[in-house]
Amino acid sequence: MTPSAPQVPTQHPYRFPVAARYAGMESSPLKDIFALAALDGVVSFAGGIPDPELFALEDVTAAYDWVLTHQGHRALQYGVSEGEAELREQAARRLSRDLPTDASQIRVTSGSQEGLFVVAQALLEPADVVLVESPTYLAAVQAFSAHGARVIGVDTDDDGVIPEALEQAIRVHHPRMVYLIPTFQNPTGRTMPVARRQMVADVLQRSDVPLIEDDPYGALSFSGSTWAPIAALPGMGARTILLNSMSKLMSPGVRIGWMRAEGPILDTLAVAKAAISMQSSVVDQLTVARYLEVADLDAHVARVSAVYRARRDAMAAAIAPVLPEGAHVTHPEGGMFLWAALGEGYDAQTMLADAVDAGVAYLPGWSFFADHADRSTMRLSFVTHAPAVIETAIGRLGEVIAAHPRR
Amino acid sequence: MTPSAPQVPTQHPYRFPVAARYAGMESSPLKDIFALAALDGVVSFAGGIPDPELFALEDVTAAYDWVLTHQGHRALQYGVSEGEAELREQAARRLSRDLPTDASQIRVTSGSQEGLFVVAQALLEPADVVLVESPTYLAAVQAFSAHGARVIGVDTDDDGVIPEALEQAIRVHHPRMVYLIPTFQNPTGRTMPVARRQMVADVLQRSDVPLIEDDPYGALSFSGSTWAPIAALPGMGARTILLNSMSKLMSPGVRIGWMRAEGPILDTLAVAKAAISMQSSVVDQLTVARYLEVADLDAHVARVSAVYRARRDAMAAAIAPVLPEGAHVTHPEGGMFLWAALGEGYDAQTMLADAVDAGVAYLPGWSFFADHADRSTMRLSFVTHAPAVIETAIGRLGEVIAAHPRR
Repeated sequence: MTPSAPQVPTQHPYRFPVAARYAGMESSPLKDIFALAALDGVVSFAGGIPDPELFALEDVTAAYDWVLTHQGHRALQYGVSEGEAELREQAARRLSRDLPTDASQIRVTSGSQEGLFVVAQALLEPADVVLVESPTYLAAVQAFSAHGARVIGVDTDDDGVIPEALEQAIRVHHPRMVYLIPTFQNPTGRTMPVARRQMVADVLQRSDVPLIEDDPYGALSFSGSTWAPIAALPGMGARTILLNSMSKLMSPGVRIGWMRAEGPILDTLAVAKAAISMQSSVVDQLTVARYLEVADLDAHVARVSAVYRARRDAMAAAIAPVLPEGAHVTHPEGGMFLWAALGEGYDAQTMLADAVDAGVAYLPGWSFFADHADRSTMRLSFVTHAPAVIETAIGRLGEVIAAHPRR
Repeated sequence: MTPSAPQVPTQHPYRFPVAARYAGMESSPLKDIFALAALDGVVSFAGGIPDPELFALEDVTAAYDWVLTHQGHRALQYGVSEGEAELREQAARRLSRDLPTDASQIRVTSGSQEGLFVVAQALLEPADVVLVESPTYLAAVQAFSAHGARVIGVDTDDDGVIPEALEQAIRVHHPRMVYLIPTFQNPTGRTMPVARRQMVADVLQRSDVPLIEDDPYGALSFSGSTWAPIAALPGMGARTILLNSMSKLMSPGVRIGWMRAEGPILDTLAVAKAAISMQSSVVDQLTVARYLEVADLDAHVARVSAVYRARRDAMAAAIAPVLPEGAHVTHPEGGMFLWAALGEGYDAQTMLADAVDAGVAYLPGWSFFADHADRSTMRLSFVTHAPAVIETAIGRLGEVIAAHPRR
């Protein structure tokens, strides 16, 4: 069937209308940075990319096989927005180690990012304030900002967000919610100690502000110690939406995570999830459930953590001597990231071009601040490369830092 | 580590703040309907659920196996927001039958629902108007409404949206975009003929309003004829975002679809997709790409369509004699749905309880109207059950209709 000739002449390049939330965002400086970091010959610490050699590929493949063999028709059929029952059971079982959780309190998401977006859809009105750690996870800020929220950073120290600063910020800004990553935080690698968690919980309960607690890294502990989420503290379970992800523990490519909440908000989260993507891949959900049922995720995570720990050690040892006087570097007890603040007079963004020329890349830290960026900061992921590669590359970074004296 | 006792007493059931867009939506009448339809002993025509016996389970399983064996590390690793190259190639190849398309013009989504949500995120401001067919796909309206858009229905006839009504509505409402499902529409099963498509394209070009064209059913043709999308008409490719899905052709559980667009909007769509869910499951994307490369999707779809055609025939034959005088029923040339308007004085919603008691369920049509609902309408999916089951159940529906004389 051939259509008739058009009655109106075709116009010059058509411009779709673009929502203000994305105006001018066709390309992002971060995209340019990742393109630089991906250049041949560059050792990149920029991304939070797990070493694929550490994936439990055999176990994951066996889980896909089992699901397609035993649950094939169901795996290919529509599921439900809340998530498949088996996966919610497994998620509840894991969470219940710290916080009694029923499968009915779980909502499955396509990774933590979708979880953050679902929360933003469900809770945020334009001009609402969200308080976050300063610095915090960039893509969370994007999910909140996409809903018109004003995202405001709260001061932190090596123990995480400062309770007095949080309470003061709540008093001034009347936030709709507070977003925290208490354990092995992205981007700093810092962990909030138990006493600090309790102080933060007290502030949140006193001020009646809900908590969005993001915990994608908590299981990746180098010391064997783990930290119960703030949601597990008395009174906090009902006022926290707690997000978990399998991306850092099993596979980021499978895109499965979940949220835990209590009460009527669970229904709102399901309605928002349905509007966004109907439901997550049933094949992937059933596969993750099967994997969690039969594979030993704890043993796998322990193996991965041991490797990451050696890499953290290599990076910590290599970077200490090359940092300028007055610089500050974190010492993560788990997770994937180390955070260095070179100190006043340094600009990690302008330094990056020379670093890439020298064959090493990092993520300039400014992008992790919702406001008042410290431009002397950089995030370095220690998980992707072997210790020897890390040592050499950090040595090169040291030369670049030395060639950029404090302005 | 035991936290200290809380300093503040736990409060009565905590209420999270809920965004106005979801206020009061904790439960939905549709959810109640689907619960009814799922009761034992009820033949349900309510959902658009493919018959799982028709899934190409062996071919899909083989594709998963191949991907995990040959691309395992990559499948489990992070991908890119735009989508995996192989899948974008396959999508471009299929689209190019009607509309020359390069892989760079494809954006992968987690099903069409996420595609609609990405489009809404990228284009819509609060209070923007979106024009849709009356009736139209319910979940599209939800994705647009979630962004604060005002969704307005435009009059249709058996050939789809009426061009004069569309032009008039554009003049009055100045819409941000027009959303159409031209082929085997949900919920009506109607198809827009080629001449009508050209008239609609002319209206859109004259008025300079972009088109969101949803085409999840187009390949499910009962006559062998297929309809090129409106996007393929001269001048329309650049001003249309065209959405495809594998849900109706291969598997809804795998949640893979894609969008085709041209120009700078492609970058905005990728930024919005990243904010929503970072990227779609890499395992699922590579599997669908492999399936499209080695399996014969056209042959599979032809087999499925032949079965659906026989079921459409069974339903059309059974329903004609049981409809009241003055009722109107569509005769779909493809897709999954048949649409009946019983006519003034009937209310398909209030009739549903009796239908369920009689062992048959449908979806009351009111939910498919953005405004001015015709409550005498019902959507009946003919794809789930065998012809004999359809005949008996429609017979029972006829008795229920007869017992509900026109008010």
